[in-house]
Amino acid sequence: MSDLRSMKPEDLQSYVEVLQKKYEDFKAQKLNYDMSRGKPCSAQLELSAGILDALKSDSSFKTADGADSRNYGGIDGIPEAKELFSKMIDVDAKEIIIGGNSSLSMMYDTVSRAMTHGVLGSKVPWGKLPVVKFICPSPGYDRHFSICEFFNIEMIPVEMRADGPDMDAVEKLVSSDESIKGIWCVPKYSNPDGITYSDEVVDRFARLRPKAKDFRIFWDNAYAVHHLTDQPDRLKNILSACKEAGNPDMVYIFGSTSKISFAGGGIAMMGASEANIGFIKKQLAIQTIGPDKLNQLRHVRYFQRFENIEEHMKKHAAILKPKFDAVLEILEAELGDKNIAWWSKPNGGYFISFNTLDGCAKDVVAMAAEAGVIFTKAGATFPYGKDPHDRNIRIAPTFPPLEELRKAIELLCICVQLVSAKKILSSIS
Amino acid sequence: MSDLRSMKPEDLQSYVEVLQKKYEDFKAQKLNYDMSRGKPCSAQLELSAGILDALKSDSSFKTADGADSRNYGGIDGIPEAKELFSKMIDVDAKEIIIGGNSSLSMMYDTVSRAMTHGVLGSKVPWGKLPVVKFICPSPGYDRHFSICEFFNIEMIPVEMRADGPDMDAVEKLVSSDESIKGIWCVPKYSNPDGITYSDEVVDRFARLRPKAKDFRIFWDNAYAVHHLTDQPDRLKNILSACKEAGNPDMVYIFGSTSKISFAGGGIAMMGASEANIGFIKKQLAIQTIGPDKLNQLRHVRYFQRFENIEEHMKKHAAILKPKFDAVLEILEAELGDKNIAWWSKPNGGYFISFNTLDGCAKDVVAMAAEAGVIFTKAGATFPYGKDPHDRNIRIAPTFPPLEELRKAIELLCICVQLVSAKKILSSIS
Repeated sequence: MSDLRSMKPEDLQSYVEVLQKKYEDFKAQKLNYDMSRGKPCSAQLELSAGILDALKSDSSFKTADGADSRNYGGIDGIPEAKELFSKMIDVDAKEIIIGGNSSLSMMYDTVSRAMTHGVLGSKVPWGKLPVVKFICPSPGYDRHFSICEFFNIEMIPVEMRADGPDMDAVEKLVSSDESIKGIWCVPKYSNPDGITYSDEVVDRFARLRPKAKDFRIFWDNAYAVHHLTDQPDRLKNILSACKEAGNPDMVYIFGSTSKISFAGGGIAMMGASEANIGFIKKQLAIQTIGPDKLNQLRHVRYFQRFENIEEHMKKHAAILKPKFDAVLEILEAELGDKNIAWWSKPNGGYFISFNTLDGCAKDVVAMAAEAGVIFTKAGATFPYGKDPHDRNIRIAPTFPPLEELRKAIELLCICVQLVSAKKILSSIS
Repeated sequence: MSDLRSMKPEDLQSYVEVLQKKYEDFKAQKLNYDMSRGKPCSAQLELSAGILDALKSDSSFKTADGADSRNYGGIDGIPEAKELFSKMIDVDAKEIIIGGNSSLSMMYDTVSRAMTHGVLGSKVPWGKLPVVKFICPSPGYDRHFSICEFFNIEMIPVEMRADGPDMDAVEKLVSSDESIKGIWCVPKYSNPDGITYSDEVVDRFARLRPKAKDFRIFWDNAYAVHHLTDQPDRLKNILSACKEAGNPDMVYIFGSTSKISFAGGGIAMMGASEANIGFIKKQLAIQTIGPDKLNQLRHVRYFQRFENIEEHMKKHAAILKPKFDAVLEILEAELGDKNIAWWSKPNGGYFISFNTLDGCAKDVVAMAAEAGVIFTKAGATFPYGKDPHDRNIRIAPTFPPLEELRKAIELLCICVQLVSAKKILSSIS
């Protein structure tokens, strides 16, 4: 079997029958797999079990500044957590707020406050403007897009390239349209493409000259230390670059331990210039008396030093690498020479981005669902759930057991071939 | 010494000199006490130490519905936490959302979402209206008022009576002004007055006929189980009453374990009709993937049953009662017959509400601060920080050690007498 697009129609037709038979066999197995979300698997969660023993009834609850972590206070987190995690998101300990269990909440809250009150330097709250727009490099993270949709922020898709978003487009948009107030970025091991922004892209971000003086880069560094190989990608420090370019307040950085410790019970953080942090802390003081400092202390007592987090992530990689490898092997074996699908081979992160021929992704996902395997909804990686080429499917290899994963990807390969072959045939006839 | 207001001026003058001497003695001690916030003391926090042992590395992390509490998901909390805490805030397990560590955040978020999106039944988001008003029974909780101020919600103070807010005023306002969208209530052991709303007040709340169809009662039941005596106050169930009155969606109930377990590391909750909960869950799903389920599980594993929470609260009472008693004894001994101050004698909660002669509170608090004791800012218990009579001071007896507390209250009594006596003298001359 080779390039489906150059096969004779009659050969392709008989191949379709073979595939159809295989598909029916899958259906008969009555699988019930959910491959839709980028969740850690149980073995990964086990890696952090020790965190739960790091604070016990007879522990000391004093934080580095002498506060009682069990009591109220400390709006921006405990000092030792700031110290530790500032290294992870590449900011100074004065440039970080350690929050609750969810960086998504910190992003949502940041947008929400911008809508009702504006950000540092806003003349009016964003919500008082006739229209607010965000640039959305796509494919991207569906939950970023949901926040925009919820707040009625108009999304402008921009293409993702191998080294980051199409910066020509970003620069042009940002410098010409005052209603563009933000851009969503997953700069390292991006969701779903798995690419890391090049130094040049980071520098071009830092040197943006936005028409909106209160424009912000939402830099969701969700996979800062989530490598799959020994040669991890390196991401240039955006806050330093912004400072050098005279744009110190232009970026908000987000991160969390959701995929380091516990997905539901980790700690989240945001980094920004001291001026931004000061502005946000004042707003935060209306919303809360402080985050759960016990969970912060628990994390710091367990990890202690940033180097230990890096070592810990190698254990995650040891669990995840075989899963990513399995997916890539099957894709290569089944589709490598077919000329109907292309996929990313990431050095880290949680996803493999898979692209079909134009106009096939929805049908492929629907077909897999019919056979009992749920993939992330086709289109989910684009604003408004609309993939203009209907071709991107996000594969999330982390959660399922290896055997389920293999089966799911085998099924995917069959569905892709079936849908593609039928499409090719119908274009010939 | 007796009624200062009927003393001869020359006697009062010489009494002032005695007081002034005492005040100077206090100043010489260079105290440095912070009596300003209603925080639990260390001994109270120790009571819950066992919670930290309730989840260890070798525990089961499965929740009642089979979910892994360490992973993502469960937007409204784990089933066993809903079951347990619904009893505390008097709702059904289907009528509760268990959140993160802060009920203040849940209240803020609820107001924030109402501003940007409206509540169930809103025709427009509150923030799109020319003016939004809240009724603020006063004295009340300063952080409620701060939320209103932050969102530019106009606050209408209504007087607090012995059995709750002045309901004649509340009914009149609510039924006549469509821009009134909410009211803040601390219905049990109110902050700061320590009173519990009578059944009649609860019923009148439930039977409100608001002009604004999307009016909400923000029922902050922060002290639901925080009794100081064996004859605790009873609060009528507001949600049931609202249902009976045909207003099932009119109330949001809030609660937390902040003053049961850990002030920084407890769990928060909100209760409401199923329709409200369904509406809110959809909005919440944009903000977060879910709360910290591990901390919820930890709490449920430790407390297990509601009866155990009630028993646990008796231990809190055993620590707090002597502190409240000490304050009340000193106030009675020093001011009982002076006719210049009046105070609450609560059966629960965190505060004693103290009232001076009109126009004295600010001076008293300033004077105490000069001698090294910080009380809650005078006026803080009123909207915009403005006590129209300048007479209310919130005493928070829980945090300081008993000896500090005694000294602080002795100082307060001296300051009150000094300020009052000078006022009386100046009104005579």
